[in-house]
Amino acid sequence: MTITITAFAQSPDRGRGLARDTPVRWALEEAGLAYDVRLETFAQLKQPPHLAVHPFGQIPTYEEDGLALFESGAIVLHIAQKHGGGLLPDDPQARARAIAWMFAAVATVQAPIVEREGAVLTERDQPYHAQRMPMLDGRVTSRLTQLSDSLGDKAWLDGAFSAADILMVNVLRRLGTSGLLNAYPSLQAYIDRGEARPAFQRAYAAQKAVFENLPKG
Amino acid sequence: MTITITAFAQSPDRGRGLARDTPVRWALEEAGLAYDVRLETFAQLKQPPHLAVHPFGQIPTYEEDGLALFESGAIVLHIAQKHGGGLLPDDPQARARAIAWMFAAVATVQAPIVEREGAVLTERDQPYHAQRMPMLDGRVTSRLTQLSDSLGDKAWLDGAFSAADILMVNVLRRLGTSGLLNAYPSLQAYIDRGEARPAFQRAYAAQKAVFENLPKG
Repeated sequence: MTITITAFAQSPDRGRGLARDTPVRWALEEAGLAYDVRLETFAQLKQPPHLAVHPFGQIPTYEEDGLALFESGAIVLHIAQKHGGGLLPDDPQARARAIAWMFAAVATVQAPIVEREGAVLTERDQPYHAQRMPMLDGRVTSRLTQLSDSLGDKAWLDGAFSAADILMVNVLRRLGTSGLLNAYPSLQAYIDRGEARPAFQRAYAAQKAVFENLPKG
Repeated sequence: MTITITAFAQSPDRGRGLARDTPVRWALEEAGLAYDVRLETFAQLKQPPHLAVHPFGQIPTYEEDGLALFESGAIVLHIAQKHGGGLLPDDPQARARAIAWMFAAVATVQAPIVEREGAVLTERDQPYHAQRMPMLDGRVTSRLTQLSDSLGDKAWLDGAFSAADILMVNVLRRLGTSGLLNAYPSLQAYIDRGEARPAFQRAYAAQKAVFENLPKG
């Protein structure tokens, strides 16, 4: 059995591991699974061969024994459900709660973070940008406050470390340069705990190596 | 075994079934499961008893035998995995693909739709609103084009009707009054097929009844 994932041939974040291959690499490392990586240029992502695997022309994808998957949340869930690796609790109720947190990460928490990110990337030179930022920040911090309240002094979202923490830590890492995490030391400590795991370290190094091996322009 | 979900005590959409209890009701109806509904006011959603079940103070939640879940995508997946009802394929690879489409619905497809919706709801009186709308529309139509291309002339996203279609149809229904679906007759036909299912009809009627039974103000 060979697992092949896709990742960006160019590194839009200069190797900071914010692209969504990072949570998939992390899950594979936690589960102790070897994998190959196929790098795709931005142009290739929008071409029929890639669109046949990923209808929305994004990375990552996941191929294994004739199965082709897309959506990082679904791929991490597949790895956890099929390959174990301690990524989901055995208890059925705890497992269902972990899956709820997986959806919360990629939907409820991620949405305002990506909206804010998009505004900074594409509208920062617009005259209305400064006026909109407090609203966009507020949508993010509203979620961070709720997440921080729910996390309390727990190490992970719901009991033991799980696939949900992989997704949530990756979503929160997108806020790295925003300054918005400064008011939430428990969330920063949560991210730090995730990043300290050996499996994260290996995943981070692997995605960064792609960027460092690029020809210098 | 009693299943209890939560829904809005007030109907923000005047009974059009756009709140996220609708996909959960629909899944329960497809699976032939009876359920109770606890209605929550907007104020109650932000109070500790509800936050203990839903960290982000939203609806729906799902309670069953001591299990409490949140996130409509996760709840629909739980119903499909635990109770069957034909909501997920038996074949493991087809099941994994259906789950990928579930994540695609609530993350990749929903995000630009909710971003556009939020701008219309909260920023329509701002002087910059008209300037931003083509960009917001474009983010939605980019996804609709890709989704339409992927759907092709298939009836459902991937083979037989599944939980993924419940989530995707509900996400697309949010575009009802936007006019953006007019250019995508195959997606409108897809929504129509979903809405024609008896289980959707029962779910829609049940959520609408809450609104119709409200005291007139």
